[in-house]
Amino acid sequence: MTDARQYFQLDHPLRLRHGGTLERVTIAYETWGELNLDRSNAVLVCTGLSPSAHIASSAADPSAGWWEDMVGTGKPLDTDRWFVICFNALGSCFGSTGPASINPVTGEPYRLDFPMLTLEDNATVAAHLLDSLHVHKLAALIGPSMGGMTALAFAMMFPDRARHLVSISSAARAMPFAIALRSLQRELVRSDPDWNDGHYDSTTVPVSGMRLARKLGMITYRSAEEWRHRFGRERIAQSASSGEMFGPEFEVESYLQAHANKFTGAFDPNCYLYLSRAMDLFDAAEHGGSLASGVGLLRVDSALVIGVHSDFLFPFWQQKEIADLMLTAGIDVTLEALDSVQGHDSFLVDMDRFRPPLCEFMAAVST
Amino acid sequence: MTDARQYFQLDHPLRLRHGGTLERVTIAYETWGELNLDRSNAVLVCTGLSPSAHIASSAADPSAGWWEDMVGTGKPLDTDRWFVICFNALGSCFGSTGPASINPVTGEPYRLDFPMLTLEDNATVAAHLLDSLHVHKLAALIGPSMGGMTALAFAMMFPDRARHLVSISSAARAMPFAIALRSLQRELVRSDPDWNDGHYDSTTVPVSGMRLARKLGMITYRSAEEWRHRFGRERIAQSASSGEMFGPEFEVESYLQAHANKFTGAFDPNCYLYLSRAMDLFDAAEHGGSLASGVGLLRVDSALVIGVHSDFLFPFWQQKEIADLMLTAGIDVTLEALDSVQGHDSFLVDMDRFRPPLCEFMAAVST
Repeated sequence: MTDARQYFQLDHPLRLRHGGTLERVTIAYETWGELNLDRSNAVLVCTGLSPSAHIASSAADPSAGWWEDMVGTGKPLDTDRWFVICFNALGSCFGSTGPASINPVTGEPYRLDFPMLTLEDNATVAAHLLDSLHVHKLAALIGPSMGGMTALAFAMMFPDRARHLVSISSAARAMPFAIALRSLQRELVRSDPDWNDGHYDSTTVPVSGMRLARKLGMITYRSAEEWRHRFGRERIAQSASSGEMFGPEFEVESYLQAHANKFTGAFDPNCYLYLSRAMDLFDAAEHGGSLASGVGLLRVDSALVIGVHSDFLFPFWQQKEIADLMLTAGIDVTLEALDSVQGHDSFLVDMDRFRPPLCEFMAAVST
Repeated sequence: MTDARQYFQLDHPLRLRHGGTLERVTIAYETWGELNLDRSNAVLVCTGLSPSAHIASSAADPSAGWWEDMVGTGKPLDTDRWFVICFNALGSCFGSTGPASINPVTGEPYRLDFPMLTLEDNATVAAHLLDSLHVHKLAALIGPSMGGMTALAFAMMFPDRARHLVSISSAARAMPFAIALRSLQRELVRSDPDWNDGHYDSTTVPVSGMRLARKLGMITYRSAEEWRHRFGRERIAQSASSGEMFGPEFEVESYLQAHANKFTGAFDPNCYLYLSRAMDLFDAAEHGGSLASGVGLLRVDSALVIGVHSDFLFPFWQQKEIADLMLTAGIDVTLEALDSVQGHDSFLVDMDRFRPPLCEFMAAVST
């Protein structure tokens, strides 16, 4: 398997926001396009909870990335113009240091010895990564979902390091409905006896708990409207039915099952717990005492905030809140409300609606 | 403990809609007020998934009922005027025959030998119960949530047995978003090793699975808006914290925990599975081939349909759909959209908004 991943290793211990220190932090990242001589055309994409740094295909890794339609020649993040960087989040399991990594101090996986993680910590490693690439100031900083929280944290903590900001289906702070859903997802993983307080190995991964958590995730990532049109009350074929008393009978049930099975092999359960909790902990008001003072720290020249009406996990009012806070902070901000029906996942699947506003915004950014 | 429950026993085997037969079906019910000489003042309330027949207090059982503010002297269901009947659903566990009952044929609990249950079966036993009370025609038939589905089934199957119909936060058929949520709740119960394919006993009840299912239930029964105002990002007291790595930290997490603990002791897991599935199976279109022909079977003189904008489990468009279908069927129907913020549960807690439309509607019904 080809691999476009590059690795950056921090040359000093990383102290985390809520305490604890990580030695020899590694961050996996990929890049597309070329950094110009002025080092002024760099664009950083912060990911949502589950993706790797593989945002798009490249010569080194021709497999499709998770935002394939967004990055490349002639696409919104035009690689003829931009040096695009995407990194695997701190705490994740696709090459960056996380709970599944070996603790260099003990020689054992961190598991729950990994310190409590915040998205501010993720923003800090992003800044170190940019240092290593000799990029002081980003042309643009882009983040969907959890990546939007990371991007906002970055822009508050390092106000002179990004000229433009794009926040997509994100939130200035986690609210109790989303916290409740994520808390329950975590409890589903933790309730699987195979989780064993984080001490599973490759033969005893808590797949049942992860599958249940992913199903709940899928329910919150899409929308009732999409499923009504897509599945209605369609039944699965009798031949595909398990015949179990309460086994899947409706199409929507087998759709969830298929998606959940795909995810459980791919993501480490402890990493999932840490990143999920990090989203709950995020609150821009911690930067200065209020949301207004937090967002007031931003020094970007302009911002684009995109939201989707059918998203109930990161609802549109939270996108409007971010835009309003920016406006109050004197930032030239554009708020885009898209009519996508795919809920929170729209930014991954409804490219025809997402490309135009991002294209327009990036066209106005100077290299 | 005092008990106002009365019991009705069916004098013949009950054949269920999807096959199977139940012998000696018992239905627990309670009544308030007096049946008049014309037997024309009876009001039947069909319950949601989890309540018992104890809708309100009475001399025989002075404990508060689940709709205490709705039933009694001077209340919308004025017991000086109406003979109010409420029954525990077939398949439930508060006195009526269900999966937790002893199968008289084997002397053992039914468990998963209980036949697949539908809300039409629940409507059928309601009709037999009314026969036993010598009530041929109800003045009004009222149902919230699952009870609204049961009431609609009853009114389609027995068109000459109710003069007026009140449907609250219900649906003409289950749609995939609600099916997905209930399917996952059932899977949470079934994934608990203690469930053991339904073969638990009183010392091995799958409490963990039930607690998780109830938490998901609570998340779908309330609303993001309510919780935002009620909990915000409030943390629980340090002293109340378990100190666990991913244990409850936010108020909303301990609220869910408290509610879930209350439920798990009270409701039988197998009964929960059957009733939950029965809601998924409900589709008024099965009565005549389409929703229009199903609702076209109704012969009520008037109907009241109440919905809540913050309800995303039984969304307002589904209330409007019921009302529109009734209108097309030539029924004098009133659609009430309430601004309650408590989501699907509003009919249980936002009495100040629910009483007036029900009062007004019932005042216009002749005894």
